[in-house]
Amino acid sequence: MKGEMATMTDEQRVREANERFYMAMTTAEIEDMDAVWVEDAKSICIHPSRDALIGYDAIRESWVSIFSGESSMSIAAGNERITISGDSAWVVCNETISVATPDGLGAAAAQATNIFRRIGGEWKMVLHHASAVPFTSQDDWPDVIN
Amino acid sequence: MKGEMATMTDEQRVREANERFYMAMTTAEIEDMDAVWVEDAKSICIHPSRDALIGYDAIRESWVSIFSGESSMSIAAGNERITISGDSAWVVCNETISVATPDGLGAAAAQATNIFRRIGGEWKMVLHHASAVPFTSQDDWPDVIN
Repeated sequence: MKGEMATMTDEQRVREANERFYMAMTTAEIEDMDAVWVEDAKSICIHPSRDALIGYDAIRESWVSIFSGESSMSIAAGNERITISGDSAWVVCNETISVATPDGLGAAAAQATNIFRRIGGEWKMVLHHASAVPFTSQDDWPDVIN
Repeated sequence: MKGEMATMTDEQRVREANERFYMAMTTAEIEDMDAVWVEDAKSICIHPSRDALIGYDAIRESWVSIFSGESSMSIAAGNERITISGDSAWVVCNETISVATPDGLGAAAAQATNIFRRIGGEWKMVLHHASAVPFTSQDDWPDVIN
């Protein structure tokens, strides 16, 4: 894999940034999440069935709260559609979410739109919008992220 | 207001493009919707609780179907947050939706992410992602758009 980093296309880099986001949701380490986002007042995060959180402070707080729950989550992204436009890029993908709670296992599906900006050569998330799709009903959506 | 068009900022132009989209949903004229979108195979539309539609052909078909229903819709966007990055822009906004059906009136709230690209000097929609927020419950979401 020598020289792989040097020859990565923008699409590969954006795909990798998107994967790091889902990895951070799975490791549940806030530092991993911090590394994914643009830590600024214009970043936006819309969790399923929620109003938009504006600014990385509010977004970070939501992840800290999610990660501190008793549940553990494993999220896989699939079917990524990547568009690059200058220093902006967006990824639309499916999310398949497995949740282990003290009460048992749950699963849910969501659709996500993730927007990234290239800042200092790195693709960083500025927007995440996830919404449930009826894999399970909205009522079955795990409490940890609803 | 002489010369207003010439001095419009990009933010104003993007806001106007976003408003044209909601106007098209309200007039329910497919030609108005056509004028808003980039009619291309990479455009993406995610209606509430639905999987992504890829490509303007599939997107157009969904609007034709929505517009041909017995219900009439009136949508107001509010609390727009606009980010411009080169020839791309995204708007996050609240949607307040009133629906008149043969059975009566309904209302719903949603969060939307809309992405635009500047093409030939015009800001055109390339992505719309809407998801319900619990103004009403997911189960009360009007059938016409669910």
